[in-house]
Amino acid sequence: MAGIFQRTVRLRAAVRHLCPHSTLTCAARLSPADFHSPFLACSSGQFVASTRKLHVEPKSSPAGAPERLPFSKVTDEDLAYFRKILPGRTITDPDLVESSNVDWLKTVKGSSEVLLRPQTTEEVSQILRYCYNRNLAVNPQGGNTGLVGGSVPVYDEIILSTSLMNNILTFDNISGILTCQAGCVLENLSLYLEERDYIMPLDLGAKGSCQIGGNVATNAGGLRLLRYGSLHGTVLGLEVVLADGRVLDCLATLRKDNTGYDLKQLFIGSEGTLGVITAVSILCPRKPKSTNVVFLGCETFEELLKTFQLCRGMLGEILSAFEFLDSECMRLLNTHLKLPNPISDCPFYIVIETSGSDPDHDSQKLDNFLEEAIASTFVTDGTVATEESKIKALWSMRERVTEALTHDGFTYKYDISLPVERIYQLVTDMRQHLGDRAKSVVGYGHVGDGNLHLNITSPAKDPALLAAIEPFVYEWTASCQGSISAEHGLGLKKRNYIYYSKPSQAVALMGNIKAMLDPKGILNPYKTLPDNLK
Amino acid sequence: MAGIFQRTVRLRAAVRHLCPHSTLTCAARLSPADFHSPFLACSSGQFVASTRKLHVEPKSSPAGAPERLPFSKVTDEDLAYFRKILPGRTITDPDLVESSNVDWLKTVKGSSEVLLRPQTTEEVSQILRYCYNRNLAVNPQGGNTGLVGGSVPVYDEIILSTSLMNNILTFDNISGILTCQAGCVLENLSLYLEERDYIMPLDLGAKGSCQIGGNVATNAGGLRLLRYGSLHGTVLGLEVVLADGRVLDCLATLRKDNTGYDLKQLFIGSEGTLGVITAVSILCPRKPKSTNVVFLGCETFEELLKTFQLCRGMLGEILSAFEFLDSECMRLLNTHLKLPNPISDCPFYIVIETSGSDPDHDSQKLDNFLEEAIASTFVTDGTVATEESKIKALWSMRERVTEALTHDGFTYKYDISLPVERIYQLVTDMRQHLGDRAKSVVGYGHVGDGNLHLNITSPAKDPALLAAIEPFVYEWTASCQGSISAEHGLGLKKRNYIYYSKPSQAVALMGNIKAMLDPKGILNPYKTLPDNLK
Repeated sequence: MAGIFQRTVRLRAAVRHLCPHSTLTCAARLSPADFHSPFLACSSGQFVASTRKLHVEPKSSPAGAPERLPFSKVTDEDLAYFRKILPGRTITDPDLVESSNVDWLKTVKGSSEVLLRPQTTEEVSQILRYCYNRNLAVNPQGGNTGLVGGSVPVYDEIILSTSLMNNILTFDNISGILTCQAGCVLENLSLYLEERDYIMPLDLGAKGSCQIGGNVATNAGGLRLLRYGSLHGTVLGLEVVLADGRVLDCLATLRKDNTGYDLKQLFIGSEGTLGVITAVSILCPRKPKSTNVVFLGCETFEELLKTFQLCRGMLGEILSAFEFLDSECMRLLNTHLKLPNPISDCPFYIVIETSGSDPDHDSQKLDNFLEEAIASTFVTDGTVATEESKIKALWSMRERVTEALTHDGFTYKYDISLPVERIYQLVTDMRQHLGDRAKSVVGYGHVGDGNLHLNITSPAKDPALLAAIEPFVYEWTASCQGSISAEHGLGLKKRNYIYYSKPSQAVALMGNIKAMLDPKGILNPYKTLPDNLK
Repeated sequence: MAGIFQRTVRLRAAVRHLCPHSTLTCAARLSPADFHSPFLACSSGQFVASTRKLHVEPKSSPAGAPERLPFSKVTDEDLAYFRKILPGRTITDPDLVESSNVDWLKTVKGSSEVLLRPQTTEEVSQILRYCYNRNLAVNPQGGNTGLVGGSVPVYDEIILSTSLMNNILTFDNISGILTCQAGCVLENLSLYLEERDYIMPLDLGAKGSCQIGGNVATNAGGLRLLRYGSLHGTVLGLEVVLADGRVLDCLATLRKDNTGYDLKQLFIGSEGTLGVITAVSILCPRKPKSTNVVFLGCETFEELLKTFQLCRGMLGEILSAFEFLDSECMRLLNTHLKLPNPISDCPFYIVIETSGSDPDHDSQKLDNFLEEAIASTFVTDGTVATEESKIKALWSMRERVTEALTHDGFTYKYDISLPVERIYQLVTDMRQHLGDRAKSVVGYGHVGDGNLHLNITSPAKDPALLAAIEPFVYEWTASCQGSISAEHGLGLKKRNYIYYSKPSQAVALMGNIKAMLDPKGILNPYKTLPDNLK
């Protein structure tokens, strides 16, 4: 790749290699786990040392909790039962349950007094059968890295954590099909596969603590969707425990199976409201023999889009990610995380990743693309990385924006799908609409998927600011037939905004499915479906 | 590609170019449409000229029809209503309805007296609302190319054809997202897209008459699944009319949308039993700049599998198909279709397709692969095609096996998913099991997807032979945790075998979904779900 770089430099002297002594190289991916891990908190009790302040939505807000539903309350008899089936894994010490009551963003806080940590599907089945009969509400929880308040209890729901269900069950080295329990941490699966010359078909910033079961339950998108597609295509099978404790075995390990309705699809993206995913089989791609990352700067979003089109044509099948961030994101990375800009200041930055089977071919394609992008003046500066540590450092400029935002103040987060040519217009319009009422208005996300992460910060929680943002942001999105949640889900916070993206006919049908699978509504109540469901 | 070929020849003198004057080049893809098109039959009435004999399963067979359910019978009043809403498109002439009553294989024949040809979603909605209220059963029909008796009526169900719903609605040249009515013929969509530098993410032998709505309703797999994944990943949105006439609008054109449950997934592969798909939005890949097809011969299936593994490693991201046929298939192609073998006789043949963005890189990768495959003696002979007409000719060796089989006699068809290393063992075991009771036992299919098409012929329908095949084939498949229908669906013929691939818990849940969406069971009755559903 050095050759490419030199040729590019000769052409325009604009693309620079990442300095090997840059502080960037020290900035390993910092995942949500570094801030908040239920496991860490449970074993050390140090969670309260976090410096971020807890914000909870008031009940009057559409994002706030509705009234508690008439579920039973946990009794001493219930606890005795749980202790019998889960000896040593029925946690009631308030200090140990605390971290599982609060979401990673610290904006939602439940008051559960019981955390259950099953190890097997049979234990999950026993728990749910019991809770169903007793009418006890249950909050299924994976790595608790969700961003919409879907992964924590709202009131006193029993927390059912999949963290101890972390065994890899099978891996077929010929087909690349992995089968594992739901509590396997994504990064651990990635490491396991890399040793076997495969990779996971998804990757996201929270990989260090998010669990595959939670990824599937929320239909996580992430950084590789552009290349490997969504979990609806890559997940081949699921084992799910239904609300009443029945085990639904759809854990096929076949690429094709058209025997009846594809039931597993119902649970992908259902946020734990239809069943508890206990095992997953997933199709994993071969590990690419060569990976390159390029960090580029553009003067306008139009030029960024032109770069995207050029890139799709010239990089073709080796393009594996096309992400962007704006100059406001860069400012936050510089200010709060001390990450220096690896190139000169620009209004927009692009992270392009290529993954292929032939390093020489990939370099040549990338070289040709960069020559053309620079010659066309679509990009004004850039740097290329081929080594693992430099690749990680460049990726961290994109992946750590979420973290930088948490240091900037209270953050209003929006995860929007739009036709790709419209995605930045929403940021511009929002900035103009809010004027100086917001501290920061930033845009970043997955250009390749038409997915914008719009984030707005203020020094503290600010109802007036919120009233200026919503429903403006939802109406704007709906006017473009966009989605108000591209990949984060609806959880607690967005459930009442579902009608901006789905017609009432569809929402009513979702309600019917919920009623069919969980007639008492004990699974993750107050989430995904709106309060006014008919 | 000539360079590659020459290098390969120098190495082993085993790979030959396809002769440009070969009769193969004249053999354009002959699709089911050439035999049986509802549209052709309706307009010309020439369908009866077909030479293939009609076979219908007896009621006593698990593949046969159960007793007629107590639906209403069509009255003159009903016809008057249909003629009012569909003037000129309510077909009752028996000669014109005939072809829509019989499946392409001519093994299932209904006795419907009405064929409705709506043009709009609103018309479909009016039809279903009326039929639902009147308790009239409906058979939704696309191109009628299904292989399991799912696409024709069993008794007197009203045939609702989507053939006139053939408008392309939108195409976004930036994102590659196509939206169209359900009755668009797959090949027409492919031609439309190719002019715009895109392709459909699926391709199959029946492309000349199958319709996209039917493709989605049956979750068609086909020849490109290895590269572009299943329709569960590529279909972005659906518009569906439910049994009672309600229109469910899930016709999103976004790559990502996590607002509630992904309802459209329910209808993908539901074979018209849960709703009538009226429009589809689908993500289309860019048209590859270079395509190559290689036809290779192997001495053993083990060597074929080694070739597959080598190919995946060396062709990586440009591999777009890896198909196989055995020497028995070749014999049928030679005998019945006069297609000459483009290489020397071998026990196994492979069709490999590459699609990429750089012709030179693709040629080089293919060259390296062929060198290695020949040096390793995995393959013993082969030929390469880069020109469109030669590529089509080589593909026809794989695509026309189905057609050749129809000339060989009565065909028992099995479409099996298995772990890839087991797929040919079933053919060998079946051949041994049947001895000389079968005329031909042939295996072909999609190695890359672990999908075997096992076909057995006899001079005429032979209940004793059938009894020897079934349940042997299903038990064999179930013992390997395979699927008894990889891509063809269950339709009428396979519905009662569902328990070989799905646990009763899952089948019961499918029944609940059917009851929820179609409580009167009017949509495509006797299909997909087993007769003994609790």
